[in-house]
Amino acid sequence: MECKKNAPIGVFDSGVGGLTVVREIIRQLPNENIVYFGDTARVPYGSKSQNTIIRFSEQIIRFLQTKQVKAIVIACNTASALALESVRDEFEVPILGVVVPGAKAAVEATVNGKVGVVGTEATVQSGMYTKVIQRMNSEIQVLEKACPLFVPLIEEGFKEHHVTQEIIDFYLDSMKKTDIDTMILGCTHYPLLRSKIRTYMGEQIQIVNPAYETAMNLRNLLKEKDMVNDGTGEEVSQYQFFVSDAAEKFRRFANTVVPFDVPETNVVNIEEY
Amino acid sequence: MECKKNAPIGVFDSGVGGLTVVREIIRQLPNENIVYFGDTARVPYGSKSQNTIIRFSEQIIRFLQTKQVKAIVIACNTASALALESVRDEFEVPILGVVVPGAKAAVEATVNGKVGVVGTEATVQSGMYTKVIQRMNSEIQVLEKACPLFVPLIEEGFKEHHVTQEIIDFYLDSMKKTDIDTMILGCTHYPLLRSKIRTYMGEQIQIVNPAYETAMNLRNLLKEKDMVNDGTGEEVSQYQFFVSDAAEKFRRFANTVVPFDVPETNVVNIEEY
Repeated sequence: MECKKNAPIGVFDSGVGGLTVVREIIRQLPNENIVYFGDTARVPYGSKSQNTIIRFSEQIIRFLQTKQVKAIVIACNTASALALESVRDEFEVPILGVVVPGAKAAVEATVNGKVGVVGTEATVQSGMYTKVIQRMNSEIQVLEKACPLFVPLIEEGFKEHHVTQEIIDFYLDSMKKTDIDTMILGCTHYPLLRSKIRTYMGEQIQIVNPAYETAMNLRNLLKEKDMVNDGTGEEVSQYQFFVSDAAEKFRRFANTVVPFDVPETNVVNIEEY
Repeated sequence: MECKKNAPIGVFDSGVGGLTVVREIIRQLPNENIVYFGDTARVPYGSKSQNTIIRFSEQIIRFLQTKQVKAIVIACNTASALALESVRDEFEVPILGVVVPGAKAAVEATVNGKVGVVGTEATVQSGMYTKVIQRMNSEIQVLEKACPLFVPLIEEGFKEHHVTQEIIDFYLDSMKKTDIDTMILGCTHYPLLRSKIRTYMGEQIQIVNPAYETAMNLRNLLKEKDMVNDGTGEEVSQYQFFVSDAAEKFRRFANTVVPFDVPETNVVNIEEY
């Protein structure tokens, strides 16, 4: 496959959460162009089945390929957990998920071999973090916990409301009572609650943000394949945003996550791909 | 259009919420057969745009027509608000929404001419309840309020948790301070919080449940058109449930809403319709 260095990175998510991954890619790879797709017409993925998530992911990858992307990041834990292996077999473009980088960082971070994972219902039910971590080191104990209200609380602007603190307590109380020393934020929205979760769990717990690790992996992948955009020949990096619905609402939320003004956002009928 | 009396009623919703309408139809029309479709692959509708909601509704109506339904109830406030007029023009089968019956009941119930409406973001943004109420009586003042966290709280089983009480207070505090005497539960999930909302708002407020009113309207429609199933020739009423995803999760929730054991639930690839 021919591939220009200044071809964009494709990033997709079920909605706005993947913007925390975009934020990390921008930090670590400031010269890359990015095409983001948020599947806002069909969000959330967290409560949907594997077949559905695979079908949605295939459609989005076909759409991103129309933008000549040189690599694709599945910036959604649910889709990474449920669809990555399937779409990797199917498409030639290099595809990264967020689960493996997050799992790897946790395996390296844990001292006592006890790791906690918080995520959506689908991610936790898939047990994918446990499988991937134990494939790397079968001695590690993994404790997974679904926190399905975190996403609506964040998206509805309740991050600073005290009920969010109570819901954190409700979901994480049992995990806090264990002796895990490392915790993976296994949903792309959760980094937006990181400081609250860190305060609740205590400073002795290492918090792993897969978004950060994934951007690192992407940088390594691009270096290996000699595909890093060195920034010559272009003025500034281009960021394009596409959604399957409700572009204006997306843009408003996006502006609270990424460090620049999100320009126009285009609506795509993703079911056609 | 030929139509057998024992043909089923089609009922659809973005997910499980419409089951509160099914419950009322079963109470008021115990001899009717029902085909229910819950669009669990694309739930929630509440944050999606009008074009998307119309497209989804058209697909579902085409699916329900393959079941030879004699009438269709859009048991979703968002879809009733955004898609009813459009699909009524397009299809021959009689189609009822929940907004008009709910609005009519409120217009009849209010004494001081001040009505409150709670619903999803999309329903409230559409202003449909206000439009429909003021078309019936232009003197009535309508106060609408979106309560986007109610649905995830109910679906995640937090109905009895005290944060739900706090979220009720957060959303309804300003409405409680007005002198409305009637309130429409403008989202099919909200009847599941009715007793809490009633207690919070006070006994002087009349709570209108559009599910109840819609089942009444359906009964009147069937009588007018001489299509009521009188129950002769059949053993018991048949209830069939279809979803676009995650049938097992749907069935579990459904069993907490309807007064019988929900049998198998079939998954339909709704994007094919």
